[in-house]
Amino acid sequence: MTEHKVTMESTLKVLLEQKKYSTLKDILVTMNPTDVAELFEEIADDRLPRLFRLLPKELAAETFVEMQPEQQELLIRGFSDAELRAVVQELYVDDAVDLVEEMPANVVRRILAQADPDMRKDINDLLRYPENSAGSIMTTEYVSLHPKMTVIQAIERIRKTGVDKETIYTCYVTDSRKLLGTVSVKDLLLATDDSMPVSAIMDENVISVNTLTDQEEVAQMLSKYNFLALPVVDTDGLMVGIITFDDAMDVLVEETTEDIEKMAGMLPSEKTYLRSSAWDLFKHRIPWLALLMVSATFTGMIITGFESALAAQVVLTAFIPMLMDTGGNSGSQASVTIIRALSLGELDFADTPRVVWKEIRTAVLCGCALALLCFCKIMLVDRLLLGNQDITTMTAFVVCFTMAVTVLIAKMVGCTLPLAAKRAGFDPAVMASPFITTIVDALSLLVYFGIASALLFN
Amino acid sequence: MTEHKVTMESTLKVLLEQKKYSTLKDILVTMNPTDVAELFEEIADDRLPRLFRLLPKELAAETFVEMQPEQQELLIRGFSDAELRAVVQELYVDDAVDLVEEMPANVVRRILAQADPDMRKDINDLLRYPENSAGSIMTTEYVSLHPKMTVIQAIERIRKTGVDKETIYTCYVTDSRKLLGTVSVKDLLLATDDSMPVSAIMDENVISVNTLTDQEEVAQMLSKYNFLALPVVDTDGLMVGIITFDDAMDVLVEETTEDIEKMAGMLPSEKTYLRSSAWDLFKHRIPWLALLMVSATFTGMIITGFESALAAQVVLTAFIPMLMDTGGNSGSQASVTIIRALSLGELDFADTPRVVWKEIRTAVLCGCALALLCFCKIMLVDRLLLGNQDITTMTAFVVCFTMAVTVLIAKMVGCTLPLAAKRAGFDPAVMASPFITTIVDALSLLVYFGIASALLFN
Repeated sequence: MTEHKVTMESTLKVLLEQKKYSTLKDILVTMNPTDVAELFEEIADDRLPRLFRLLPKELAAETFVEMQPEQQELLIRGFSDAELRAVVQELYVDDAVDLVEEMPANVVRRILAQADPDMRKDINDLLRYPENSAGSIMTTEYVSLHPKMTVIQAIERIRKTGVDKETIYTCYVTDSRKLLGTVSVKDLLLATDDSMPVSAIMDENVISVNTLTDQEEVAQMLSKYNFLALPVVDTDGLMVGIITFDDAMDVLVEETTEDIEKMAGMLPSEKTYLRSSAWDLFKHRIPWLALLMVSATFTGMIITGFESALAAQVVLTAFIPMLMDTGGNSGSQASVTIIRALSLGELDFADTPRVVWKEIRTAVLCGCALALLCFCKIMLVDRLLLGNQDITTMTAFVVCFTMAVTVLIAKMVGCTLPLAAKRAGFDPAVMASPFITTIVDALSLLVYFGIASALLFN
Repeated sequence: MTEHKVTMESTLKVLLEQKKYSTLKDILVTMNPTDVAELFEEIADDRLPRLFRLLPKELAAETFVEMQPEQQELLIRGFSDAELRAVVQELYVDDAVDLVEEMPANVVRRILAQADPDMRKDINDLLRYPENSAGSIMTTEYVSLHPKMTVIQAIERIRKTGVDKETIYTCYVTDSRKLLGTVSVKDLLLATDDSMPVSAIMDENVISVNTLTDQEEVAQMLSKYNFLALPVVDTDGLMVGIITFDDAMDVLVEETTEDIEKMAGMLPSEKTYLRSSAWDLFKHRIPWLALLMVSATFTGMIITGFESALAAQVVLTAFIPMLMDTGGNSGSQASVTIIRALSLGELDFADTPRVVWKEIRTAVLCGCALALLCFCKIMLVDRLLLGNQDITTMTAFVVCFTMAVTVLIAKMVGCTLPLAAKRAGFDPAVMASPFITTIVDALSLLVYFGIASALLFN
């Protein structure tokens, strides 16, 4: 794929250089709009408008939707009113809304001026829904059928009105905008009797979402039920739009990326990595780094509190990194597993007792196995192989006992914090590795020095 | 949603208790198969066959596909040959393959015995494709049209053969199985002239995948191009099947979960959290925990090497956790960002120089900001507020200088290792937090003691 793109790019550049516009056009019309947009990203800004004008009307609008906001703005600024109008009229309402949300105010005014009154009203309506709600990502262009229409009339209606609809394959049976059922084009085409009313073949068990439903939930429902589209109803139960599977897929990918970023202690970013400047990356990374660094004051205080004991038994210091890291790793295994299960809807707060019990048993297994392995490692590698005679059997026992307790604590903290966050209405993803590590570090040091004090220092 | 499910569950149990089978049936037929399957998960095993037999044929097959393997096996073992045959004949080939892959050998023999010869051949063919390949997730049931058919003939053919196809909305124009183009039902229905040949309205720029293409790549292509289905061709360029968007969505979710599990130092699991036993969790978590614990031998060796110096300056020990954690966090921010960008196809190995340069600048910004903040924190909190007079300005300087260098090293290790893994053909997801933390720990200690030796111990 990538190689193919690179070759195409250089070919296009040469053709552009030689002003072979008709050859260029012949090539572009054979391409998929997504690929055209990807190619255009690599073209110098001053040449972009010229290339874009080569595209036929429909391909132009489809390509425009797939382009990056900076390039869209550049093109709009160069468009005549007529050109802008041609593109805007071809857009689906949800794509128009996405565009308006990205553009500066003066560009938005121009876009709205070129939309026809109906579309302008739809755009303004959709802009009023809260960010990340079903309303904000839906489109108002769907096929609606009346329950009394016959199959043949329904097919006729689809053929007449379908060209402007985002999907024609699921049709919505409504009466005065009240949603009564759905019927697929497959059902219509495969109906044995063309004169049957739509109400006789429609599916009345409609699954719908509200305009205010969270977009992530919508995406998960589409994915769970394998629907092509989900109808959106307002608070009065009247149908206002649909959300199609392709938008749901985009939402799934975006929301997962956000979760992953949060889990790694970053603020989520809307830009792709290569489009983010070092300054952008810095702004997204420094808050958690700074917060976690400052909170390490506690671990520092704990060590300082045991300073004199440590000075007498410096050998204990050597095991601090191993204990802290194993604790951190154990905790993040649990927290990340729980966070993912929460975000896939496999778990909720009511499952807490089951989760805690499962993690206790897992922690006992992991803790015992690690303690045993650790004891062997210390006695064989550290003491025998590396010849560190400061390590007594008692020291090894203290370290291994701490290890087992730390793993248990880490798994407990790791599994309960995301569930508690969910319950409190925070995003569980924030309760991942970095956060857990900081807490587990402090706890594991307290356990370590506590056990050491009891067994070694008296 | 969940509450609704719980109420339904208890209602069904009561009805089942009272043997009100016809009421039960009336309720079940109004439900979506996915929801029926979810409900059945909560029903005791001995009652399941009775409930399942209430479902009409089509709903039964659709529900069966959505059930968990353990329940599928239970049902099959209870089925008569005729019942099994009814379910198997209703399955799409890709679902039948999934089923066969999950069942033990004696159950598989029964399933294959009940499939008709064509289906049995298709199942056996699909089973031969490597795991995670396009061939292994495709279905052979698609609508194929001949280029010389007219629009009206094409619609006729869809109406006649469509009932057994997984999707009818994208049709594939083939001649002797060679893929010539695609035509959507929308194009056919909206065609202005019914007597036009299919070849005149088909889209000849077909994007297809090979049977051996990785399923993750297929899912990303479907998501990128917003296709309902992608055609799969064999090595001779002949069409063998299609992959539909719903399977692609499942693949996206599964592959992301796998990535997240690997990033948290776990072996990927196919079972959901609540279905995994503590023993399952243990087996998936212990390998990385043990490996990383043993590799902490290096950090131990480094500390032991500087033991005498540390004994003289115990105050330095107090900052070890902070330096290690900040290094670990900085490194995982970089590695996780790069791993996600790699898995979304936004980056590849050729971008390494751009990535490294961006990370160097980000690391300098983060490193300087953290060093400054750290200096203030040490002097104000640790020295003034907590009154630790062992901390000199020189100590603070050593810690902060180490901090800046550690952040730089961590970001470099974090961004290069996943790219190198990708290049070497390993899964970059393994190069995430736990792995990076272990390496960065050792490096940061070396830097710390190196700087301390140079500035404090002479």
